[in-house]
Amino acid sequence: MDKRFPILEWLPKYSKEDALGDFVAGLTVGLTVIPQSLAYASIAHLPPQYGLYTSFLGCIFYIFLGSCKDIPFGPTAMVALLTFESIQNKGPEYAIVLSFLSGTIQLLMGIFKFGFIIDFISGPVASGFTSAVALVILTSQVKDLLGIPTSGSVFIHTWSSIFGNIHHTNLWDAILGVICIACLLLLRIGSKFSLSTVDDGLKRSKIQILGNRFFWFIATSRNAILLLICGYIGFCFFNNGLVPFSLIGSVPAGMPSFKMPPFSFEKVVGNATVSVTFGEIVADLGSGIIVVPLLSLLENTAICKAFADGKTINPSQEFLAIGVCNIANSFVQAFPASGSLSRSAIQHSSGSRTPMCGLYAGGMVILALLFFTPYFYYIPKATLAAVIIAAVIFMVEVRVIRPMWRSKKKDLILGVTTFIACLVFPIEKGIALGITINFIFIFHQVARPKISIERLKTGQGLEYLMITPDRCLIFPSVEYVKNLVNKQSNKQKIPVVIDCTHIYGTDYTAACAVECLTASFSSKNQLLIFYNLKPSVGAVFEGVDPKDLEVAYDEQGLHHALENKTMQSP
Amino acid sequence: MDKRFPILEWLPKYSKEDALGDFVAGLTVGLTVIPQSLAYASIAHLPPQYGLYTSFLGCIFYIFLGSCKDIPFGPTAMVALLTFESIQNKGPEYAIVLSFLSGTIQLLMGIFKFGFIIDFISGPVASGFTSAVALVILTSQVKDLLGIPTSGSVFIHTWSSIFGNIHHTNLWDAILGVICIACLLLLRIGSKFSLSTVDDGLKRSKIQILGNRFFWFIATSRNAILLLICGYIGFCFFNNGLVPFSLIGSVPAGMPSFKMPPFSFEKVVGNATVSVTFGEIVADLGSGIIVVPLLSLLENTAICKAFADGKTINPSQEFLAIGVCNIANSFVQAFPASGSLSRSAIQHSSGSRTPMCGLYAGGMVILALLFFTPYFYYIPKATLAAVIIAAVIFMVEVRVIRPMWRSKKKDLILGVTTFIACLVFPIEKGIALGITINFIFIFHQVARPKISIERLKTGQGLEYLMITPDRCLIFPSVEYVKNLVNKQSNKQKIPVVIDCTHIYGTDYTAACAVECLTASFSSKNQLLIFYNLKPSVGAVFEGVDPKDLEVAYDEQGLHHALENKTMQSP
Repeated sequence: MDKRFPILEWLPKYSKEDALGDFVAGLTVGLTVIPQSLAYASIAHLPPQYGLYTSFLGCIFYIFLGSCKDIPFGPTAMVALLTFESIQNKGPEYAIVLSFLSGTIQLLMGIFKFGFIIDFISGPVASGFTSAVALVILTSQVKDLLGIPTSGSVFIHTWSSIFGNIHHTNLWDAILGVICIACLLLLRIGSKFSLSTVDDGLKRSKIQILGNRFFWFIATSRNAILLLICGYIGFCFFNNGLVPFSLIGSVPAGMPSFKMPPFSFEKVVGNATVSVTFGEIVADLGSGIIVVPLLSLLENTAICKAFADGKTINPSQEFLAIGVCNIANSFVQAFPASGSLSRSAIQHSSGSRTPMCGLYAGGMVILALLFFTPYFYYIPKATLAAVIIAAVIFMVEVRVIRPMWRSKKKDLILGVTTFIACLVFPIEKGIALGITINFIFIFHQVARPKISIERLKTGQGLEYLMITPDRCLIFPSVEYVKNLVNKQSNKQKIPVVIDCTHIYGTDYTAACAVECLTASFSSKNQLLIFYNLKPSVGAVFEGVDPKDLEVAYDEQGLHHALENKTMQSP
Repeated sequence: MDKRFPILEWLPKYSKEDALGDFVAGLTVGLTVIPQSLAYASIAHLPPQYGLYTSFLGCIFYIFLGSCKDIPFGPTAMVALLTFESIQNKGPEYAIVLSFLSGTIQLLMGIFKFGFIIDFISGPVASGFTSAVALVILTSQVKDLLGIPTSGSVFIHTWSSIFGNIHHTNLWDAILGVICIACLLLLRIGSKFSLSTVDDGLKRSKIQILGNRFFWFIATSRNAILLLICGYIGFCFFNNGLVPFSLIGSVPAGMPSFKMPPFSFEKVVGNATVSVTFGEIVADLGSGIIVVPLLSLLENTAICKAFADGKTINPSQEFLAIGVCNIANSFVQAFPASGSLSRSAIQHSSGSRTPMCGLYAGGMVILALLFFTPYFYYIPKATLAAVIIAAVIFMVEVRVIRPMWRSKKKDLILGVTTFIACLVFPIEKGIALGITINFIFIFHQVARPKISIERLKTGQGLEYLMITPDRCLIFPSVEYVKNLVNKQSNKQKIPVVIDCTHIYGTDYTAACAVECLTASFSSKNQLLIFYNLKPSVGAVFEGVDPKDLEVAYDEQGLHHALENKTMQSP
């Protein structure tokens, strides 16, 4: 069986311990997903309720299809940013249709096993892109943190707009925001802290254990706690008739209705009603229809790898699962989503056992939609901005610079180039540039084999030239190798042997070049022998009927051929 | 020295024999270039004199910079077609600016040694493209052959238009055209024929030799002779007041004026005069500015290879030479040009010695411009169409199908796909599709190494798994290899050895995967050894500080490590 339904593997052995672990992890993730949903909706420039709409149905569908126990499906900062870049403030209808289309493309790629295309984004490009995304998102939140208007979605444009408006800063927003960020960062550090830091092998006292658990809980649900506190502060100010902060404002209560995605809809422009067709939506979304589904899988696959524990991961199955979740989500007015790295870490450390966690996290979002939306009104925008900023700054992968530098400097240059390109251009163009440069590396590697040239002697003292290319001979390298062989053979008029040990693949273009080589060697009466030719490669060469193709399969045969043939020729 | 002026190599040793050979070859090519110039201008949908303008200055400049003695620079069928696809009947000004821009790009690519990019067009793609170009050109001439109007520049559209108008066929044009094609084909066969076909080693009589030479001359200058005869027929009909054929019509006499290319110009539209700016011209030419210079080099490089006689060719020098010729040409109102394969064959077989031939061919075109243009009036269009058709049908490379099939079937499929794509879409899109598919082949080859897996034993009978990838380990293949190693090691819980003999290159992404592998093997207490790791590859792996990286450099060391380490572990 093809493991299209991973649930069939784990559900039959589902135990009480699994249930408890999943319940605790699910609730903990739920405490994070609610504030993140509200916040990430603002990255996509959508009203906050759309974040909640994105957070319950998909993560329940993921239980059935997901292959990784630590993926909490829902809105993520990166996908929200990509969504914003695609829909460009054109309204939630576009986001919902984008979720449907992204899901469809992901589903198709999953069914046709196109998961491998994630492999074509190398580590350095992914790091550069992710780091830039983090800075772009951080930048997009500065406006709420300072309470100023900004424009532009490209990093450098937004910053120039921020500096242009910085004198409009609302001090209350700014102070609250900075305090919130400080609290979140401190609690984050605290989450890695325990009351008894010495690993002394002794049993800890009950108080220590309880204290550690309590501390861990506070640190893990820091976003929710912060929202509660700041919401209360907002509420108090509001009740006293003072609103020094920008607040979220009213969030519609209740569940979204279950209905078809708005493939065409009517829009009010001025006094007129304009109908927007499906074709127009698709045209407006443009390349986003490809970029969003592919790059959101980048984040998702990174999570799978991070928590795989040596298990084989199957990106195609993840494509399929995420695709179905996004399609389902589009029926409850959600925007595109994926697995979220920040919540994954929480889910993993909270002791998740199976994807069942999604049930409890989704359930909490449903409860929030049904009962808590009136209270969201008072949450200051600066607090949400702080939640986002405190989450994304750790996406900037400063830690990879040193190993990349020591491992392969070219890769570091590539990573930095991608990073800068994503800040200077729209991010999808930035990563496209990075991928293109990386492809050029591959082409260069294919086109320019390393070729060693040695002057050797047979037992009888006959000198010959041994030319050894180190990789397969296919069209981009054919002319290079041919020219080099010609040049060397013209310089030193002795028999030439091409060592084909490392030539494991070839093509018609190479066969033609070989034919050309044998003909020109034959015409200048110089001996050319192909040594250790693999049968599959030899068959391709034979296909073009090269005249005088001399082949030798071991050293003895080679020396024999060299000595015999040289004797025959004048 | 960089050989930027190949003339410095051959001119100092220029002999009387060289001069005679070049003179004869130059005149023979001149007899071909005049009818071809008139004809190829019609492929570009330009008035015939522009073909002549394209044929004299560039081929004189080529003498100084060209690296191949058999290249007669001038209009070619393929480049004329590409020019037409770019300028789309917008007028000769566009063609002249295109010649300047193409030349500039070729010059820059020559200076910066970008000649290697021709290597990225494989044999099958080039064959499919060239064959399709031949059919598209042939199709474009059917209108003149039948004397009917047609529309559409894409193969399939033109043919549907031909069948729609076939009842308008002018019988006189059609009959003359078919007779002309038949004569040209017969004479072409004749050019490979000699009076004494038996190679009997005896001296031939003087009459035989003279006869052979005469026959060869007639066959080689068949285009010019046909034009002369048909022009005379047209003249006779015209003088009797009968014009049953479409004639070329008046060709302006005299040399073109030497002036700047029309970077901006005024155009009469209806009653108004509209000025066209350089920006508008560039925008209208669009991708043609890249496609024309690159693909015209494809033809040129193919000629160099065909007549290289085992010498190393330097595509960058050809880029540079052709670039300068096109720039110079744009000052005498020429359209883009390149080396022509059909005239190359004539130049080669006429005994050319150096690029000096261009002087005589160019001289003849100048004479034609000065004195013969009035006579061109009477040449029937069907004769020119016949000249083109008889030249291009031999560009359809049917002969490569059999060797391609026997050599590598995937390449044949690629060639046929490119061929069909060039007929169904505009040709530049067709070849782009072919190149893209070919690149996917490369990516697949890089991403999916062949990996052999063996179960071996040390001297002491310890079993281990030997995993040998056959090519370098870079990012697209990293996950594949890692997953395979994980899977195999989980299946058979014995020490695993990765044989790195063929891994000659790697990158940061691979290093991270290796780190991940060593960590997971270490955590499951299984031994993992990298065998025969090249120092350069090892250094990249070490960069990310993998824990427990075990390395062995020879069989003895490997067995020693296997036995020792296995003893240590529980």
